[in-house]
Amino acid sequence: MEMYFLADAATAGERVAFPADEARHIARVCRHRVGDRLFATDGAGCELELELAEVGPETVQARVLGRRTRPREPRARVTLALGIIRPDRFETVVEAVTQLGVAAILPLQTGRTVARLGGSRVERMRRVALEAMKCSTRTVAPDVAEPVGFDGLLDSAAGCEQVLLAYEGEHGPGMVDVLDPEAGSVLLVVGPEGGFAPEEVERLRAAGARSFSMGPRRLRAEVAAVAAVANAMQLLHEMDGARTADVPERRCY
Amino acid sequence: MEMYFLADAATAGERVAFPADEARHIARVCRHRVGDRLFATDGAGCELELELAEVGPETVQARVLGRRTRPREPRARVTLALGIIRPDRFETVVEAVTQLGVAAILPLQTGRTVARLGGSRVERMRRVALEAMKCSTRTVAPDVAEPVGFDGLLDSAAGCEQVLLAYEGEHGPGMVDVLDPEAGSVLLVVGPEGGFAPEEVERLRAAGARSFSMGPRRLRAEVAAVAAVANAMQLLHEMDGARTADVPERRCY
Repeated sequence: MEMYFLADAATAGERVAFPADEARHIARVCRHRVGDRLFATDGAGCELELELAEVGPETVQARVLGRRTRPREPRARVTLALGIIRPDRFETVVEAVTQLGVAAILPLQTGRTVARLGGSRVERMRRVALEAMKCSTRTVAPDVAEPVGFDGLLDSAAGCEQVLLAYEGEHGPGMVDVLDPEAGSVLLVVGPEGGFAPEEVERLRAAGARSFSMGPRRLRAEVAAVAAVANAMQLLHEMDGARTADVPERRCY
Repeated sequence: MEMYFLADAATAGERVAFPADEARHIARVCRHRVGDRLFATDGAGCELELELAEVGPETVQARVLGRRTRPREPRARVTLALGIIRPDRFETVVEAVTQLGVAAILPLQTGRTVARLGGSRVERMRRVALEAMKCSTRTVAPDVAEPVGFDGLLDSAAGCEQVLLAYEGEHGPGMVDVLDPEAGSVLLVVGPEGGFAPEEVERLRAAGARSFSMGPRRLRAEVAAVAAVANAMQLLHEMDGARTADVPERRCY
């Protein structure tokens, strides 16, 4: 299953034109021909099944065969708030957690954050998220937010059913003990390399956050982030048979 | 908690000398002084608590205060067999899954494997594993094996209680449905980018392997590998309070 980006959300029977960069990829890299079938998404939940009607080096048009809404998207909205780490490592996290199904990524500026993320880096992370969306055959591109401070984090927390904090000072419950598998929205908070300051943890707890341990081994921030999202998706039944009715036919891993 | 490598497995009261590269790191990078306390492991399960007795630019000696066996190591032995992917991406997987607690990593040459791993790359992956062991405060360095073919994989499978195959053709059970949380040894098999050939899947199943889905979103091989290990560790209760009695005091994430 090949997935392309197409901003137009057309309906069955209509004809659509791909943007130039997608057209080049279809015509020159994948060498598709008239009559080939492929999929496109607007990154906002709409998936179109298409049959190519015109394939030129710069212009590719297709006829819409069918349209679906949010196939393969998780039921629950999982947001990852991650303390800012080195931009190249943050991009790797964006790529991985997009494939795993997050709805949003919130770069977090905490008291102990050392690295910085400029506007161009955030733009680049958005492009990484869009590519990872296509590769993973998702139909929604996660929202990569501008970096927020602690107040912004608390604003986001207020909109989520559950706020869970990966905290190395926590020797008690694991995620399995605090995550509600039926939750509709979960905010996962993972600190930067320097960890959270105790007063930050207290502010989060006062706002309703529950902390959890990730075990006795020390994890780098980017590994903690990917593992936390994978574990949350497992507990939310997003990685088992309950959600695999429409797996794309091409191999995934 | 700082963890260094020391091949000698000494007992309490003895005096030990660090190898030159660790000595330089202790003296010059971390600027430790006589009387400072730190930890060292031989990578084979022995952890020593040490007090520095002599700190020179090339020579660092310490007195052994205490000795423990396999602290912070998982109860279950989890082996990751991963179809060979680009060496730099494979190294990232080695770093992450070492932190997450795997006992061994098996590079797997399958029918659809495109990338190659030379001997020097395997050596480099072993150094990555050793560094990740120290950073994560583990006391066992995972075994990074020479690449094996399908017969070698079946040999390894014969020594494991459970063999679980992440298979994109599986639309039914997830890992939660097939992994026994009480298993003493688990072999997780994740294919390369090209996936497994159907006859390879059949050979693995005939050898007792059970396949599982990782959900409807397509995962790149390296993301599938890290997520599979994180999910297995979660199901084995290696990432919750049951195992966090002796978390190191320094922040992990």
